Amino acid sequence: MDKTLIRGAILVTMDDRRPDYFAGDLLIRGDRIEEVCDEPGKLDPGECRRVIDGRSLVVLPGLINTHGHAAMSLFRGYADDLPLKEWLEGKIWPLEARLQAEDVYWGTLLSIVEMIRGGTTTFTDMYFFMDKAAEAAAEAGIRAVLSRGLIGLGEGAGDALKEGEKLIEDWHGRENGRINVNLGPHAPYTCPPEFLKKVIEAAERTGRPLQIHLAETAGEVEECRARYALTPVQLMEREGLFRHRVVAAHCVHLEAEDIRILAERKVGVAHNPGSNLKLGSGVAPLKHLLEAGVKVGLGTDGAASNNNLDLWEEMRLAALLAKGLEMDPTLVPAMTALKMATVYGAEVLSLEQVGQLRPGYKADLVGIRKVAPHLSPLHDPVAHLVYSASAADVQLVMVDGEILLEGGELTRLDEERIIYEASRCAARLTGGSPQGV
Amino acid sequence: MDKTLIRGAILVTMDDRRPDYFAGDLLIRGDRIEEVCDEPGKLDPGECRRVIDGRSLVVLPGLINTHGHAAMSLFRGYADDLPLKEWLEGKIWPLEARLQAEDVYWGTLLSIVEMIRGGTTTFTDMYFFMDKAAEAAAEAGIRAVLSRGLIGLGEGAGDALKEGEKLIEDWHGRENGRINVNLGPHAPYTCPPEFLKKVIEAAERTGRPLQIHLAETAGEVEECRARYALTPVQLMEREGLFRHRVVAAHCVHLEAEDIRILAERKVGVAHNPGSNLKLGSGVAPLKHLLEAGVKVGLGTDGAASNNNLDLWEEMRLAALLAKGLEMDPTLVPAMTALKMATVYGAEVLSLEQVGQLRPGYKADLVGIRKVAPHLSPLHDPVAHLVYSASAADVQLVMVDGEILLEGGELTRLDEERIIYEASRCAARLTGGSPQGV
Repeated sequence: MDKTLIRGAILVTMDDRRPDYFAGDLLIRGDRIEEVCDEPGKLDPGECRRVIDGRSLVVLPGLINTHGHAAMSLFRGYADDLPLKEWLEGKIWPLEARLQAEDVYWGTLLSIVEMIRGGTTTFTDMYFFMDKAAEAAAEAGIRAVLSRGLIGLGEGAGDALKEGEKLIEDWHGRENGRINVNLGPHAPYTCPPEFLKKVIEAAERTGRPLQIHLAETAGEVEECRARYALTPVQLMEREGLFRHRVVAAHCVHLEAEDIRILAERKVGVAHNPGSNLKLGSGVAPLKHLLEAGVKVGLGTDGAASNNNLDLWEEMRLAALLAKGLEMDPTLVPAMTALKMATVYGAEVLSLEQVGQLRPGYKADLVGIRKVAPHLSPLHDPVAHLVYSASAADVQLVMVDGEILLEGGELTRLDEERIIYEASRCAARLTGGSPQGV
Repeated sequence: MDKTLIRGAILVTMDDRRPDYFAGDLLIRGDRIEEVCDEPGKLDPGECRRVIDGRSLVVLPGLINTHGHAAMSLFRGYADDLPLKEWLEGKIWPLEARLQAEDVYWGTLLSIVEMIRGGTTTFTDMYFFMDKAAEAAAEAGIRAVLSRGLIGLGEGAGDALKEGEKLIEDWHGRENGRINVNLGPHAPYTCPPEFLKKVIEAAERTGRPLQIHLAETAGEVEECRARYALTPVQLMEREGLFRHRVVAAHCVHLEAEDIRILAERKVGVAHNPGSNLKLGSGVAPLKHLLEAGVKVGLGTDGAASNNNLDLWEEMRLAALLAKGLEMDPTLVPAMTALKMATVYGAEVLSLEQVGQLRPGYKADLVGIRKVAPHLSPLHDPVAHLVYSASAADVQLVMVDGEILLEGGELTRLDEERIIYEASRCAARLTGGSPQGV
């Protein structure tokens, strides 16, 4: 079977039975990690089809993006610095109303190119025309957790749910299991209890997890209280959502009881610090979530509100915000931030055998350059990964044992064409010129 | 005289008499910008020694780093996630006690390489062995604002002040004015009033501005109040510091009266959001500072507390923190953040004819690539610069009319040697191995 050996790299395995980092070799067989060896140069390259010199690399599990809307890359920089209502109602929704299938296809590919370049090996997506997003992910070689966004208001609600279930039928488990499909009820304020009931029934039928926006803004919590005398988290608990596996995005405005529920129900939280700041939503209580034992992954959200899909930035933001706002520099140390972007992310998304460099696990991994001015001196590679590295330091990306980026070059995708087509779609939607300026 | 033409770039001039951005040509003559033209391809390349095809670039003024300790790059990642006292007393100060001149030379060069690569054309530095920092800056071709850090406690205080004044004599104005030297009283809590009086006298003698750390932590403010019944800002006002031009770094913990004083006295504030978060100091009240008319520039602080020297990150953090913490997405729009990194930075540092692309101004400029996945589509270049670009997107750097980086290559500095020597110095200081791991 196809074997690849990475020799003499610094390995950051995220396997808690091992030291945080060490020099060693990594043997990959097919789509899996076969052996992790802490003696660099020890493993025999004889039978390997490919040997990668890892001496200039820090190799770690691929990063996991637990929340986003990939095709919204088309709207990157189109409308910033606006009040939330004006941004959504005046700018984003009118564009989304004109969206066509090809827009989602090219917009999703644009995001995937950016994510692969930045070391993200799994992304999460909730949007429309999701068969096109699935096609894009399948072609790109990346691991994906997709859902059809479900708005439970208006006439199309039932059809959307049918589409969402059909997406599971058509796509879940395909591409050697790389494509995962969940159900995507948008949010408590767009999915009233009677609709949510139907979504939960679909979750029971399909056995698939749900992903939902939850407690993103203070306004949402206020409205929910006014209507149901419950917080959004408590409302979801009452409606039975949390009897299923749930990825709850944002969770910015929580009270102690909410955090207790999230922990008890093992709800996975997708923390999106960049988007939450940029939209003026606030900062999630990461310290309290982690202390309560809630599993927290990181998300970028869509590029309309971030505006890049760089998980290194989100890692750094998560760690820095917790320290700065709680005025305690010991909070969310580098290793915790890195766990959120890898092993915790996999748990949040219910992905098994992903997120660690460990025998039997999927060969989803990233190599970061070891030597660069901003990564020198090398006192501690984990500190550099979290506090100093950036997407541009990614040299090697492998998903499911296949190299998707090596030496700065994408192996599967035609970046130039994708940028061209996505810019063309964006220009059509906005009435601008394809070159922008 | 030596002329360079940049043709057909998107120009972000930061000159408020012009649109935020437009396609055009830029003519540089010697160390100055001679002409800014908003018709791309119009200026005659005939007499130019060098013509740069700008069609793949967004060109803007070079970024200005208003606060830092360059040689502390040697300690990058050496001690993170620790309580402030343990970090300083257990880790940083013992290393600094062993510092030698060559450490400062190589550490400063390491920071300069990182800064040039990231599009910083002016940096500010307060540290020891500053003749070595000046040598490094002179060799590197970068613009610098240097000061000998002055601690007014203990026996060496008078000697340090003499050194600080000598640095001005020896270095201020050299290299065609690229090297600027200020006086650097460290902080109110390390410079008691009687010492500060002597520093102010030196400022009167030399006519040079002062740079100082001010109101960085809640503890500092508390101690100052207990001792003097005044906040640090009010104490400095009483002592007469603000009768001179002052760059005040941090200014995290301020009351309304402090902000009034900073505005009235035209004190320049160096805002260091990354360092302030990472050390658990808090977040400066940027909204209120800007509303009061205080000039605010951006700083990275030293790499021991950041841990990179990427001003794009600081721009983004400044904008995002203001929006997120005040829960108002309209605060600190992209153009304001970009001003802080350029034109306001120049004002904070009292640098004339720097920070804008404008005829007669110094040719300190940066070219960012126009096309990249994370910078597409190009709806608005200014939004991309602030919310999506990174240091790695910098393609072209010019200081004083001289190209320091082109096509990813440094023109003056030997990066490989600098990383090697800085790593060697760091290993000697910490007792580690030069390769780190």
